[in-house]
Amino acid sequence: MAKWIWKFGELEIYHSLMLHDRRQQYGFPEPVVWKMYAPEPVVVFRKKVTTQGGVFRIRACGHASTSVQTGENPWETIKCGGKSEISLEAGTATVQIRVSNAKTFPCIYVDGIIESDESWEADDLSVNFAPVGSSPLFTDREKTPESFPFAYEAVFCDKREEMSGGVLFDFGQETFAAVKLLHLTEERVRINYGESREEALDDEWSVIHFVREPKEGELSFEPSAFRYLYVSDKGADVEAAYEYLPLEYRGSFRCGESLVNRVWDVAVYTFHLNSREFFLDGIKRDRWVWSADAYQSLFVNHYLFFDPEIEKRTLIALGGKAPFKRHINTIMDYTFFWIMGIREYYQTYGDRKFVRQMLPQMQEVMAFCESRESADGFMREKPGDWIFIDWAPMDKEGALCGEQILYARALECYGDLLEAAGPDVVISAEEDAGGPYRVPDEKDRPGRAGHIGQKYLQKAKKLQEQIRERFYDKEKEVYVDSYESGRRNVTRHSNILAYLFLPCDREQKRNIYEKVILNDEVRQITTPYFKFYENQVHALEGNGTLLEESIRQYYGNMLATGATTLYEEYDPGMKGAEHYAMYGNPYEKSLCHAWSASPIYLLGAFRLGVRNTGVAYETFEVCPNPGDLKSFSGRVPVPGGAVEVSVNEKEIRVKSDIPGGTLKINGKEWKLAVGEEIVVSYEEKNTDHGR
Amino acid sequence: MAKWIWKFGELEIYHSLMLHDRRQQYGFPEPVVWKMYAPEPVVVFRKKVTTQGGVFRIRACGHASTSVQTGENPWETIKCGGKSEISLEAGTATVQIRVSNAKTFPCIYVDGIIESDESWEADDLSVNFAPVGSSPLFTDREKTPESFPFAYEAVFCDKREEMSGGVLFDFGQETFAAVKLLHLTEERVRINYGESREEALDDEWSVIHFVREPKEGELSFEPSAFRYLYVSDKGADVEAAYEYLPLEYRGSFRCGESLVNRVWDVAVYTFHLNSREFFLDGIKRDRWVWSADAYQSLFVNHYLFFDPEIEKRTLIALGGKAPFKRHINTIMDYTFFWIMGIREYYQTYGDRKFVRQMLPQMQEVMAFCESRESADGFMREKPGDWIFIDWAPMDKEGALCGEQILYARALECYGDLLEAAGPDVVISAEEDAGGPYRVPDEKDRPGRAGHIGQKYLQKAKKLQEQIRERFYDKEKEVYVDSYESGRRNVTRHSNILAYLFLPCDREQKRNIYEKVILNDEVRQITTPYFKFYENQVHALEGNGTLLEESIRQYYGNMLATGATTLYEEYDPGMKGAEHYAMYGNPYEKSLCHAWSASPIYLLGAFRLGVRNTGVAYETFEVCPNPGDLKSFSGRVPVPGGAVEVSVNEKEIRVKSDIPGGTLKINGKEWKLAVGEEIVVSYEEKNTDHGR
Repeated sequence: MAKWIWKFGELEIYHSLMLHDRRQQYGFPEPVVWKMYAPEPVVVFRKKVTTQGGVFRIRACGHASTSVQTGENPWETIKCGGKSEISLEAGTATVQIRVSNAKTFPCIYVDGIIESDESWEADDLSVNFAPVGSSPLFTDREKTPESFPFAYEAVFCDKREEMSGGVLFDFGQETFAAVKLLHLTEERVRINYGESREEALDDEWSVIHFVREPKEGELSFEPSAFRYLYVSDKGADVEAAYEYLPLEYRGSFRCGESLVNRVWDVAVYTFHLNSREFFLDGIKRDRWVWSADAYQSLFVNHYLFFDPEIEKRTLIALGGKAPFKRHINTIMDYTFFWIMGIREYYQTYGDRKFVRQMLPQMQEVMAFCESRESADGFMREKPGDWIFIDWAPMDKEGALCGEQILYARALECYGDLLEAAGPDVVISAEEDAGGPYRVPDEKDRPGRAGHIGQKYLQKAKKLQEQIRERFYDKEKEVYVDSYESGRRNVTRHSNILAYLFLPCDREQKRNIYEKVILNDEVRQITTPYFKFYENQVHALEGNGTLLEESIRQYYGNMLATGATTLYEEYDPGMKGAEHYAMYGNPYEKSLCHAWSASPIYLLGAFRLGVRNTGVAYETFEVCPNPGDLKSFSGRVPVPGGAVEVSVNEKEIRVKSDIPGGTLKINGKEWKLAVGEEIVVSYEEKNTDHGR
Repeated sequence: MAKWIWKFGELEIYHSLMLHDRRQQYGFPEPVVWKMYAPEPVVVFRKKVTTQGGVFRIRACGHASTSVQTGENPWETIKCGGKSEISLEAGTATVQIRVSNAKTFPCIYVDGIIESDESWEADDLSVNFAPVGSSPLFTDREKTPESFPFAYEAVFCDKREEMSGGVLFDFGQETFAAVKLLHLTEERVRINYGESREEALDDEWSVIHFVREPKEGELSFEPSAFRYLYVSDKGADVEAAYEYLPLEYRGSFRCGESLVNRVWDVAVYTFHLNSREFFLDGIKRDRWVWSADAYQSLFVNHYLFFDPEIEKRTLIALGGKAPFKRHINTIMDYTFFWIMGIREYYQTYGDRKFVRQMLPQMQEVMAFCESRESADGFMREKPGDWIFIDWAPMDKEGALCGEQILYARALECYGDLLEAAGPDVVISAEEDAGGPYRVPDEKDRPGRAGHIGQKYLQKAKKLQEQIRERFYDKEKEVYVDSYESGRRNVTRHSNILAYLFLPCDREQKRNIYEKVILNDEVRQITTPYFKFYENQVHALEGNGTLLEESIRQYYGNMLATGATTLYEEYDPGMKGAEHYAMYGNPYEKSLCHAWSASPIYLLGAFRLGVRNTGVAYETFEVCPNPGDLKSFSGRVPVPGGAVEVSVNEKEIRVKSDIPGGTLKINGKEWKLAVGEEIVVSYEEKNTDHGR
């Protein structure tokens, strides 16, 4: 089947550029604060084809010019210019379609006797032909990849309230919609978008607002996030079209506790609002792609949509292009999370082709990182670096523990990915295709990735040992933020990262858990962002109530404030509109933030207990853990199907659509056979097949 | 005075992209065949300013967001968002304006209490702040640099001829104009552009033609080149606006021979048509920027417009961006000519700032070249390389002599340029400006350029010696194309390049001149492109008639075919429409080609005899040589003025507006004093000051 194709990565670079240019702030567009990359304006597509002869059609975004080379000599090529229908004689020919597009990005759709698909290669006239990019979202000749194929659904306001000379519309819940105002009578009309009522009523500080002159009593606006709209025209009526990416809900979770179910549902809605071209941070502000936020979204996606496409798009967009001169989002840790994210993607879907396609940019990024190592191999702040880890006080003097742990982990992931790419890596699929654009020399290839992989695995191991030597405080028996400052400051962050990403032994893990995580004297994590990691530590340590407590209290109280989506951060000590303030401004907190959707992941991985232990679930474990819940059931998506788990006070039932699973309960193990339900009763700990 | 500013290079990258996307061929747009680069979509501009307080205004192409940092802590910055008028308090502040523009390129105009000018810096959020780009063409707030400020002048058709169911318009001479058709009666109208009558009348093979549907009897077209227009509508009338870049004619030449004067005038018109955003190859086809064509245009420009701006724009556009992965225009020699061109620019204008600004891309390009050297240091063909030198048979087996000579010359020029940039090179003007975007570390700077310069000068010298060893045939006493093939093939090309660009001694030069250049058995140069170099050899060897012969015969006969501009190539053996064919198609020869304008340079440098011998004419020589002309006079532009030379059968008169000149005649020398005319009579060879 024919599909739209482009130079690998360019769709994502283009839509990322569009996306990051859409932010609105206090009446003005607000440009992104990190490096953006532009699509290549001229690209050549090629394929060597053998046909019985016939006609093919070309549709291009941009100006296309086609040449057909039937012999071995590139100078004997037939130039077809800009024709959109071209005849091929029977036999073998190399078809090259050169496309320039200075407005969007070059892409083509070819059908007829030959078709555009993944078997084509593309090059930006740099002699670097490589397999093209494509997407199941773009298979329709009439719908170009220049527009992202969102779906639209009318949403309606619950309540229309005339006030302050205008109208306040309440849509009942957060949405992301294109708004059309009707029946306007004023010459100039103001519209304030509000995630809260207070925000919509604040002319100055509503983050998104416009003042426009209606035409024939109407105004239309690009989609934005809101629950409330204030319009400064008493006659105003509103129509709104919810814009979203259609994604299948492949994971599910239901338990006997309605509040937990409600949190799951709100997390799902929150997450869906933020799952669009890419994984976004929040749907109102910034609506940008942040690497560490996206990294967590991968995990949530694995337990909800299990959609590899949005993961690939996000990882490509984040990686940018060469020359890579500054950390992703300007944040050192975020570059490391990007590499870790690619490995997480690979582990989940086993997609070696994607790893190979990402290899050139991974090489570029890792070369950047290595060029910035201190003499001792640690990563210290350089001009332009933001050393983040979390919004929390930390001793950032000299090398910061968390950054080193993540760097070592990134090196390890990179080594793994190089191994996965294989020792036989050849980026060009068609080495001997000939044509004016020949493939690079043997020595120019990224080949022998596997051997380089070993080098990085060893480097990672060495760095991990060095981290242990320098940052592990032998007296405190936990990790300190900085060994250079002499302050021996202990934070949850350094120790959580050590627990999860260093090869700690059981005793070290236990120490970290007891001396830091369970120690109320160590300052608490305040962001849902880092709670994601802390909750994993709790779960891995077998804590069976904390997840539910957090859901009931933290999220329960958040919902009690009237939240219809999950906030970026929630402080139970605040009240009223205080909840909406952040970054020094009254409504800059995102009230619909992806990183707060982690219960989807945590309930899936640590209550339903389904966890990938191999590549693409070749092996996986199912360790259902009732935790503090009496009963629950749900589905966890896996490649080619799902695993169903149901737990009540009497028994555990598990059924898998795929082989490779092992059910583990209290030290006992049962192999899962495809399609056969296993029932384990609590009392008897027996197996009972085939029911 | 305020002016538009942009990240250095981005204006040129943008307009080059637009330019290269405008080619039309047989009814379709024809994309460029080499790598194009896109502008950076997000750029930050900054300046540390000290004011008495007041308001400044911002006009931006794109979305702007401004911040003002008054203290040392970047976190305490005042965010002004998208406001276009901003107040500054008295004192010192760092103003940062972040601009995103995914459609054209980010640029700003600031006026009021502070103004945008060369003292600002820009960065693409890669922590590489460097002085901005600006241009005397863009100083008007209301005229953004997104549109190139061409001038327009109505041109009129000489002759309207109804034929073939339509009308043929003859404009009397080649032009480049926006065409408007009026009083059309047909539903669909064809327009064929023709540099020749034959081309305009050829529906299939006229290179530029369109079929369009008129609106209200009218059609408008983007500017294209033509002398003739055929319109398939008997009612058609035409209006045409010649589009050109206003450039001052600072050089002049007049002699007693009207044909020579006519060639000079036609060369001037040809060259002006091709001097636009950049130096173009030809005004019809390709209307692209080719490095070696542009290199020659520098020399012509020095004797005509003496406009540094078009040279800078051309050199920036050709250099492209990092990553640099393929030779300029895909041609190996053209990359070398680019480096040589930058040195030529520097030698002419002494503009160290430009050299410094070009340094990063020069480094990138030279690193690319060095990465492609063979083990012996020679440059041999690699995938994607076009080994060109000229349209002529050459023995291209293994290392080609001409490429090595040009590479060595490029290394030498690069060394010179690094020396010129100075050992104190610091790209960032304001090291301690602070702000969120700090300047790079000491070791990241391109600093100490001077020392690296020495390295390249030595490398060039070593390579030149090696070329001598390998390519100089001791028996033939001239250079051979290839030492690897064993064929010992001798061409003019290798020897002309050796004469001009290797440090040959007098004897070697004499050998080359006698055994190759004056040897009719060595295949003649057929392109005006390489005649440019061959004529220099003749002139340097003191040949006093060949230039005139070439002008009278080659150009004279070309004009006799009806040429109103100078052709890309001219073969006296052809007749009629044969003259218009090239590249296998009947009208693909460019009939208005910049590289044919070299008489402007040759007459200026070798008849008027004014030649720069230092940097920016700190020293220069005036060696008037009547050649085969009886009398002539003219002006050669120099920095800050001109040198006037007048020669007749009795005397030579020279006057210079600037110091540094030495008049040289027959081994005698006279120092030129500013504004004082020197008159040397032929008979007496006396000086006679002050007449």
